[in-house]
Amino acid sequence: MHRDLPARLIDAHTMARLAALTDIDPTVVLDDFTTAAARQELAGAEVIVSGWGCPPIDADTLAAAPRLRAVVHAAGSVKHHITAACWERGIEVASVAWANALPVAEYTVAAVLGANKRLLRIREDYRARRAPHDWQSAYARAGNYRRTVGIVGASLIGRRVMDLLRPYDLDLLLYDPYVEPAEAVRLGARSVTLDELCAAGDVVSVHAPELPETRHLLDGRRLALMRDDSTLINTSRGSLVDQDALTAELVSGRLNAVIDVTVPEVLPAASPLYDLPNVVLTPHIAGSLGGELHRMAAAAVDEVALWTAGRPFAHPVAKETISRTA
Amino acid sequence: MHRDLPARLIDAHTMARLAALTDIDPTVVLDDFTTAAARQELAGAEVIVSGWGCPPIDADTLAAAPRLRAVVHAAGSVKHHITAACWERGIEVASVAWANALPVAEYTVAAVLGANKRLLRIREDYRARRAPHDWQSAYARAGNYRRTVGIVGASLIGRRVMDLLRPYDLDLLLYDPYVEPAEAVRLGARSVTLDELCAAGDVVSVHAPELPETRHLLDGRRLALMRDDSTLINTSRGSLVDQDALTAELVSGRLNAVIDVTVPEVLPAASPLYDLPNVVLTPHIAGSLGGELHRMAAAAVDEVALWTAGRPFAHPVAKETISRTA
Repeated sequence: MHRDLPARLIDAHTMARLAALTDIDPTVVLDDFTTAAARQELAGAEVIVSGWGCPPIDADTLAAAPRLRAVVHAAGSVKHHITAACWERGIEVASVAWANALPVAEYTVAAVLGANKRLLRIREDYRARRAPHDWQSAYARAGNYRRTVGIVGASLIGRRVMDLLRPYDLDLLLYDPYVEPAEAVRLGARSVTLDELCAAGDVVSVHAPELPETRHLLDGRRLALMRDDSTLINTSRGSLVDQDALTAELVSGRLNAVIDVTVPEVLPAASPLYDLPNVVLTPHIAGSLGGELHRMAAAAVDEVALWTAGRPFAHPVAKETISRTA
Repeated sequence: MHRDLPARLIDAHTMARLAALTDIDPTVVLDDFTTAAARQELAGAEVIVSGWGCPPIDADTLAAAPRLRAVVHAAGSVKHHITAACWERGIEVASVAWANALPVAEYTVAAVLGANKRLLRIREDYRARRAPHDWQSAYARAGNYRRTVGIVGASLIGRRVMDLLRPYDLDLLLYDPYVEPAEAVRLGARSVTLDELCAAGDVVSVHAPELPETRHLLDGRRLALMRDDSTLINTSRGSLVDQDALTAELVSGRLNAVIDVTVPEVLPAASPLYDLPNVVLTPHIAGSLGGELHRMAAAAVDEVALWTAGRPFAHPVAKETISRTA
């Protein structure tokens, strides 16, 4: 992982647990598997605890790590470092994607509740008026009662969002081509087509993985289906939304958005998305941030504990599911 | 209630239910009990469905309403219209304060999650930078993992906030002089003194009622106990917080705040609270707004349905509890 990551990722308690479970030198952090020092570490390694910035564990790396049997990823997606060679060798892989899903779902809940309540718009409106006003008349469609929230993708994050929204008086719609209607009902939602979801949602929240077939899943036509004054939330990846079409809808003021991911990440300084009052734009921080990193490390050490006890991972990653998950 | 309120409060479905249960003329809305027209309506009324703007139901009003036996309040507090004369006459009173508690609790959840994540600050920071940045280093204490949220008052709203925050990895503290430590544990929180709560909270959220003894409950000394960069949420009443002391802490940037209630409501145009980036100021809209009014009306008609069936109210108001609730 990035060499400066462990200090932020692993708190003292979790590092002590890891040290008790394994023969680890906490000062050794590899962000390059090709150096002589890295080769020396790889020679004896049985398990790699990986994190953001882990280079690909390719055939060459594996050849240098004859004893390696497992990789525990203290972050979400393993796509960037678990290679075909790992699967061929039979390396066991675990990921704490579930732990990284939690803060994304929590960001989404805050965004849904705030969007339906028109929280930031009312703040700006009050700033501008500074006088008595009939807020009830002005915001007659506001509030979180019987509003419709469309969830695009029953991913780990999408499922957690549905769980967290269950105590609210919201109608949940789900679009996921891999989920049967009966399962959607068990998740607390009604299964619909993506077009239906776009047309009915007061909020549309994107939780599908970045795949070739999900590129521009929310294209200009589907964005045009969305209700006037509804809100698009994207915490997935920028590529899932036709950003030019979305920007046009936001500049016109017809739609609102909460956007944590864009193409490219770090938008050009001239992008209108930075300043629009109907847009909350954040720099890909919905996932684990600050203290939330400690949860990922604690979850990764839980997996290491299972593995050292000879038990199966609680959250193994299977090669077959990689192609349809984040 | 206010004459223009029913059109916003009662949707067609709920009005149809009310008309089926009672002998009601939906065009008659009283906001003054002293007019000749009002006297005519009161003469036959057995139940009053009240809402925001209901004048006091005093001895004079009661004398004009010999058949009146119940008041169902389609809003929160009954303090402004249920008089001592009502209790003396044995009028049965119901309130849908529980239904009005839900949106306030939901506003609070959005505020807690957003504050811990530093959502709006990061938005402003990204607006200013428009360039790559080490957000993890800059926001090392951000996030909703193992942060401490202090709940001041186990009111209907405070309890709902604790319920809604249970699925998150947050430590809840509760200050409420009427709640035993064991009950606090059942509510998912740890009972502490108010000083301890202020000193430990990453967020302090005020849900106590406005009473003579709660005036400036959060005074300058207690605000000074709050952690640097922590957030005060007030959705209760402005009088519970020493607003001058809070304003000084906010202007200095030491604290953050989400404030829905102030003294006076509608602050002077020169108040710094409107513009401070570390303050979200809203004009007393955390409670039922827009579509959320329909829930209060539906809940009120549920109470009417029980009453017309000769059954007790689901949410009766007892004279004894008035002095310690909102």
